[in-house]
Amino acid sequence: MSARVLDGNVVANQIREEIRPRVEAYRARHGRPPGLGIVLVGDDPASHVYVRNKVKSGMDVGFAVDLHQMPASSSLDEVLAVVDRLNRSETHDGILVQSPLPPALGDEAERVVFDAIDPAKDVDGFSPVNVGRLVQKRAVLMACTPAGIVELLDRSGIAIAGQRAVIIGRSDIVGKPMAMMLLHRDATVTLCHSKTRDLAGVAASADILVAAIGRAGFVTTDFVKPGATVVDVGMNRVDDPAVAARLFSPGSAKLEQFARKGSVLVGDVHPSVAEVAGALTPVPGGVGPLTIALLMKNTLRAAEARAGRP
Amino acid sequence: MSARVLDGNVVANQIREEIRPRVEAYRARHGRPPGLGIVLVGDDPASHVYVRNKVKSGMDVGFAVDLHQMPASSSLDEVLAVVDRLNRSETHDGILVQSPLPPALGDEAERVVFDAIDPAKDVDGFSPVNVGRLVQKRAVLMACTPAGIVELLDRSGIAIAGQRAVIIGRSDIVGKPMAMMLLHRDATVTLCHSKTRDLAGVAASADILVAAIGRAGFVTTDFVKPGATVVDVGMNRVDDPAVAARLFSPGSAKLEQFARKGSVLVGDVHPSVAEVAGALTPVPGGVGPLTIALLMKNTLRAAEARAGRP
Repeated sequence: MSARVLDGNVVANQIREEIRPRVEAYRARHGRPPGLGIVLVGDDPASHVYVRNKVKSGMDVGFAVDLHQMPASSSLDEVLAVVDRLNRSETHDGILVQSPLPPALGDEAERVVFDAIDPAKDVDGFSPVNVGRLVQKRAVLMACTPAGIVELLDRSGIAIAGQRAVIIGRSDIVGKPMAMMLLHRDATVTLCHSKTRDLAGVAASADILVAAIGRAGFVTTDFVKPGATVVDVGMNRVDDPAVAARLFSPGSAKLEQFARKGSVLVGDVHPSVAEVAGALTPVPGGVGPLTIALLMKNTLRAAEARAGRP
Repeated sequence: MSARVLDGNVVANQIREEIRPRVEAYRARHGRPPGLGIVLVGDDPASHVYVRNKVKSGMDVGFAVDLHQMPASSSLDEVLAVVDRLNRSETHDGILVQSPLPPALGDEAERVVFDAIDPAKDVDGFSPVNVGRLVQKRAVLMACTPAGIVELLDRSGIAIAGQRAVIIGRSDIVGKPMAMMLLHRDATVTLCHSKTRDLAGVAASADILVAAIGRAGFVTTDFVKPGATVVDVGMNRVDDPAVAARLFSPGSAKLEQFARKGSVLVGDVHPSVAEVAGALTPVPGGVGPLTIALLMKNTLRAAEARAGRP
């Protein structure tokens, strides 16, 4: 018995196809496309990959995408000046500052920069105003990853209301907003974390289990009730052969990929969970594409909301 | 075996005793006491009782309390004008508008008024900015009832970290902020509500059970793990003899009180839970006094934060 695969690329494509005509309608009415400003500071290679995907996705749905690349040596004031300019721009509807900022900017820099973004343009949903509105069930702009997971469940025909949902990981960008979104859809929601006792036992009570902890293959079969839906938010690079051997069975595609490339991407969910779960998101190709699709949807919604109409 | 009683009045008094010298220090430094503006619109009798208690409590700890009573016929604009004046006042550090507003003001009035309060003066913690900051674990002003419950648990020596907490009720002012506060104290938190299946079974997994649903005696012994801490947020008036007979045993003080007065206050927790729980808050005299004490603490904190120092 192998779990049904919840293909994030398929759902992300559906969402993009729904965005495109709305972008066209917006452009026809307002004489310009929705505009997305992206600020990328420094040389983090992963950030460059993410930003490239976001730029490509934005162009693809018809947005005007405006990428501001800044050197790692930029000061906090310089970053804030760019944010301020984008806040005041008539044609930038969405603003996103790629995380993480260079460590040299200090521990508080990210919070200061995110707080500076106009909440009406905060397409990541990180501003405290948007987080508060999410809790109060009246948000326009919500964190992209959990919002994408709700879209994936809905479009895969997986019921949420009345179900027991367990979330492992309590981050501001996944765990906590995920809890609020599932609660508002009438799930009974449990938030777990590193201090949770009998974590496997609690997780195994879930009809919907969301793993967002950043530990390769951490969620093993004993965490999963047979038939449960398992959403894997993790994206971990494994480059240790011993870890790869522990995670992947001999002859599996992943192990072959590891042998060929010397590393492989793996989620927080152990591959063997596919034999127990009823449905499972793959890594890559599960939650990742949805996060970007929801970023596009947020940008469109920000543009429409700012204009007071589509 | 009867549960230990967690006396809210005792803890509320401790908190007030800690507030008093800080109020004195504030007054000595700033030449005036912290100021609390209270807006009361209409004739709701319960609201008048609550406001009287808040005024009295504020005076008692040494605040300048400024009560604005407005007729039920007031327009939304008139209420907003008072809020705006208090927002701009130098000497009003905290502002609270008593809920509920008269129904004639419309369904959205409360949200509009609460949103209009300067977040730095929002001593109820209802503003979306303060709710978002709570989620992000950096709030200065937090909802009073759940914050009071955390104080009660702490000062009663009841551990939170690593415990399973179950909250019944998902309101914006109790259930949801309670979940965030217990999560930030390292509890494993489950939020339950009317759509939860096997509610009693889920509740019975709790080491700390918080009932905030507004249904007299709803939480019965089968909801409670032996030895659990049970926090009763409910405050329901029972005036039906059949209900009283179902809730209270013959000869009990509550039933006697009912016979004498024709009504009695009861929480969401059935009295028989005292035989199962390890610790239990009474109604009245449990959570209620703490809510008001935390309102005072919030006002002091707002004053200190606005001044940038004690």
